[in-house]
Amino acid sequence: MTKERLYLFDTTLRDGAQTTGVDFSIDDKRRIATLLDGLGLDYIEGGYPGANDTDTAFFASKPAFRRARFTAFGMVKRAGRSVSNDPGLQALLASAADSICLVAKAWDYHVRVALGITNEENLASIADSIAAVVATGREAMLDCEHFFDGYKANPAYALEVARTALDAGARWVVLCDTNGGTLPHEVERIVGEVTNQLPGDRLGIHTHDDTGNAVANTLAAVRQGVRQIQGTLNGLGERCGNANMTTLIPTLLLKSDFATRFETGVTPEALRTLTHASRVLDDLLNEAPRRQAPYVGEAAFATKAGIHASAILKDPETYEHVPPEAVGNQRRLLVSKQAGRSNVLASLERLGLAADKDDPRIQTLLDEVKARESAGYAYEAAEASFELLARRHLSGVPRYFSVDSFRVMVERRHNAVGELVTVSEATVKVFVNGETDALWSAAEGNGPVNALDGALRKDLGRYQKHIDSIELVDYKVRILTGGTEAVTRVLVETMDHATGERWLTVGVSPNIIDASFEALLDSINYKLLKSGAVAA
Amino acid sequence: MTKERLYLFDTTLRDGAQTTGVDFSIDDKRRIATLLDGLGLDYIEGGYPGANDTDTAFFASKPAFRRARFTAFGMVKRAGRSVSNDPGLQALLASAADSICLVAKAWDYHVRVALGITNEENLASIADSIAAVVATGREAMLDCEHFFDGYKANPAYALEVARTALDAGARWVVLCDTNGGTLPHEVERIVGEVTNQLPGDRLGIHTHDDTGNAVANTLAAVRQGVRQIQGTLNGLGERCGNANMTTLIPTLLLKSDFATRFETGVTPEALRTLTHASRVLDDLLNEAPRRQAPYVGEAAFATKAGIHASAILKDPETYEHVPPEAVGNQRRLLVSKQAGRSNVLASLERLGLAADKDDPRIQTLLDEVKARESAGYAYEAAEASFELLARRHLSGVPRYFSVDSFRVMVERRHNAVGELVTVSEATVKVFVNGETDALWSAAEGNGPVNALDGALRKDLGRYQKHIDSIELVDYKVRILTGGTEAVTRVLVETMDHATGERWLTVGVSPNIIDASFEALLDSINYKLLKSGAVAA
Repeated sequence: MTKERLYLFDTTLRDGAQTTGVDFSIDDKRRIATLLDGLGLDYIEGGYPGANDTDTAFFASKPAFRRARFTAFGMVKRAGRSVSNDPGLQALLASAADSICLVAKAWDYHVRVALGITNEENLASIADSIAAVVATGREAMLDCEHFFDGYKANPAYALEVARTALDAGARWVVLCDTNGGTLPHEVERIVGEVTNQLPGDRLGIHTHDDTGNAVANTLAAVRQGVRQIQGTLNGLGERCGNANMTTLIPTLLLKSDFATRFETGVTPEALRTLTHASRVLDDLLNEAPRRQAPYVGEAAFATKAGIHASAILKDPETYEHVPPEAVGNQRRLLVSKQAGRSNVLASLERLGLAADKDDPRIQTLLDEVKARESAGYAYEAAEASFELLARRHLSGVPRYFSVDSFRVMVERRHNAVGELVTVSEATVKVFVNGETDALWSAAEGNGPVNALDGALRKDLGRYQKHIDSIELVDYKVRILTGGTEAVTRVLVETMDHATGERWLTVGVSPNIIDASFEALLDSINYKLLKSGAVAA
Repeated sequence: MTKERLYLFDTTLRDGAQTTGVDFSIDDKRRIATLLDGLGLDYIEGGYPGANDTDTAFFASKPAFRRARFTAFGMVKRAGRSVSNDPGLQALLASAADSICLVAKAWDYHVRVALGITNEENLASIADSIAAVVATGREAMLDCEHFFDGYKANPAYALEVARTALDAGARWVVLCDTNGGTLPHEVERIVGEVTNQLPGDRLGIHTHDDTGNAVANTLAAVRQGVRQIQGTLNGLGERCGNANMTTLIPTLLLKSDFATRFETGVTPEALRTLTHASRVLDDLLNEAPRRQAPYVGEAAFATKAGIHASAILKDPETYEHVPPEAVGNQRRLLVSKQAGRSNVLASLERLGLAADKDDPRIQTLLDEVKARESAGYAYEAAEASFELLARRHLSGVPRYFSVDSFRVMVERRHNAVGELVTVSEATVKVFVNGETDALWSAAEGNGPVNALDGALRKDLGRYQKHIDSIELVDYKVRILTGGTEAVTRVLVETMDHATGERWLTVGVSPNIIDASFEALLDSINYKLLKSGAVAA
């Protein structure tokens, strides 16, 4: 059977820019566009040239895409002026876009109340604007704003808006659930009625997650015949977000009812980079990845219950609806308070720490993990700290050095010329194992942890060569209020610039500096261990 | 038309306990159960008595519920032993549960491979176990594990499992999509076939969000006739989580195709506490609330785009699919980089700071907000800091006091008896406005920010009475890497124990101590402003 082609239209850089807390720089846009192109998406909507300086600059030239069409968003011309006298539309036509997606109102109520024009004037604006895009040799699309609410109120007019754009030469007309309130059974019915009258291979679907149904609404529309899907990476977007491409793509490629009927531009190889792409976007936005995200979340293939964990080790396929590797994710049997021996054994195996499952040290390790997690440690993320803990129980970790004392000082004062300045300094006293003289190091930093990190890594004697290329690249703090007293948990991410490797370590204490220091020490010890440094 | 009753079964405390990173104490369980009962849920599944100490203790007595049935979870008896010789089942029967929900395998493959018994032995275990529960006068339910995968593989056997439990007297048989891989059109078809043969008013649906369709799958099952819905608050649960009750409840009560056909135990008054209940759960778990959550998320009714913002102010109903007040949430027109004048004006109006929209100070305020957000400030959350900023532009804020200098020191050292201890101290020099002598205060703390907070609030002279009842209750840190240099953003939440009010303030600096100090100062100034303190 020949598969039908589905076209994927990404609007991360346009509708996704409406996300609360998100503000893309032009560099962000360039990086994310390259990422999306690498995934194999068909259209990348980059923004709204003419509406703000970033988008205008971004659309001044076309990024070097492998295959995606560079798409600009804007509005159809205003009623009562010609295409050539509409500066918004002219800015779009002057851009380097391959395709132009115009938005117009499809709900007669909004035509009347928000635009204050007649239904016919709105149709004329649509026809003229689409024709103007087509005349420049570009692909034209129309986003029908509030299509579903409009269709419920006046189906004939909503259809007429869509038909007008198609007749004017639009490649695609997109049915938008602008306020996100339409439910799957309604999408199924309405899209079914629309595709009885208009060609589905020229229709798209654009949904929002206000009822938690953006993905289901998209799938329902595809089953009713539409062939273009709009969405965003990680479900960015105004309010509750747009349809999540990171969820839709694996469903379309891996779930048989879709995979056997349809094909997209996303290859199986590209699909295996999906988890990575999702995390890169979070990193660019400095957002914590959503652990529970379908397919790509850290927890998407995680099992905590001891009883399930042992079953999964025997027979993963019946417990996992798709193989985690297919989306570049991995199975996780969590080390946690509820962990059974199976989970700990699986973690050890992943770390290459073979252990006999009846070894009594497994139980003492499990007991310590449980006690530490009760105190606030989190080993699910901080695998480097878990590995150190496990090795200390099973095979031992060399004692490379010990810190005798440290002092951190932060002072805000008026300097000699009367300016208010803040200085941070740290002093650390270290004994390298096997040497009798203490190493004293001091450093300034732009804050106390930075100063402490600097002082600690300034001089570790004969280990220095192993740590010269590492850097603290992320630092996260949480206040835990589980017990009688609040404690601070610090997660430190370290990167080795020589190898590109990254690892996470954890520290917990009522004192943020102590907690940070513990995580920094784990990070250095982990690096020395992996480098094969030899303790005296 | 008489409405049909839908029964809401909450499994936050059982399946939700499988969430990565979640571990409920018995106090957590009691608080959350009370919260769920207050919402009007019909069943609260509290855990698995006999499986661990927490759950056994929790089920030793019934919490004082207003209406919910206290429900225990467990497994049907093992094949080859009698009910009276099965300790797991006996522990369930010995609990204070009103209802008991047993789980059994509905997929013949798992019966053979995981249990290693015959299909008939599995049916006998189900019949005997359900009958034993019914014999004690309790309500019995059966969770059919992997029902949908089982039905696809062997529909006759999956149905036989369900029918066996119903015949043995089960009030409910629940169709579980255990691995979360079933898509809405499959749920629609399979549940339709099941309800052709079994009574829908004795069937339930239990879905997981592995394809982002847990809510849609639940709604599809209800439309096909099932009348019990299982889910969790905030969508907690193993892997990608369970069907989110926080999303389902408003959909069932507010969206007309469901609201006109069905009724639940949740009143409109209780629905208005939903956003609060969702946040309380996050607070208990020390989780950051998910901004994009449908209905209850901070962004669920937020608008950033200038063009939408002005339209929403005119006519909210056409842009919002339900009124935010109905779920206890609120409309937000965000103050942000993309903010137009409408957003700022709306924020000012909410704060009671009436301003003429043509006042040039609105533009200077907007410019400053934009500049500060570029530098890392976040006023979406920190409304107290926004209010101070706005008042400084519009009407002025008294200068109550100024901090001349501070010093924070954290030292780890060996004390007199050779123990390694860490001490944190801070000194602050303050001039209270109108007085010439400086106030010097020093304090110790369990960390540098705590010490600084203590020293700052120790002596503010004549303002002291206004700040005695306030306390720093939350402290969040993020490292932002937007610009050339990383900066730290600190959000401080302060509570006034005298009034119960809470407010958030923000500080940004490359130095975590400076950023914290800025947020602490804003917090105190905000409190003095609200108290009507008079500067000299």
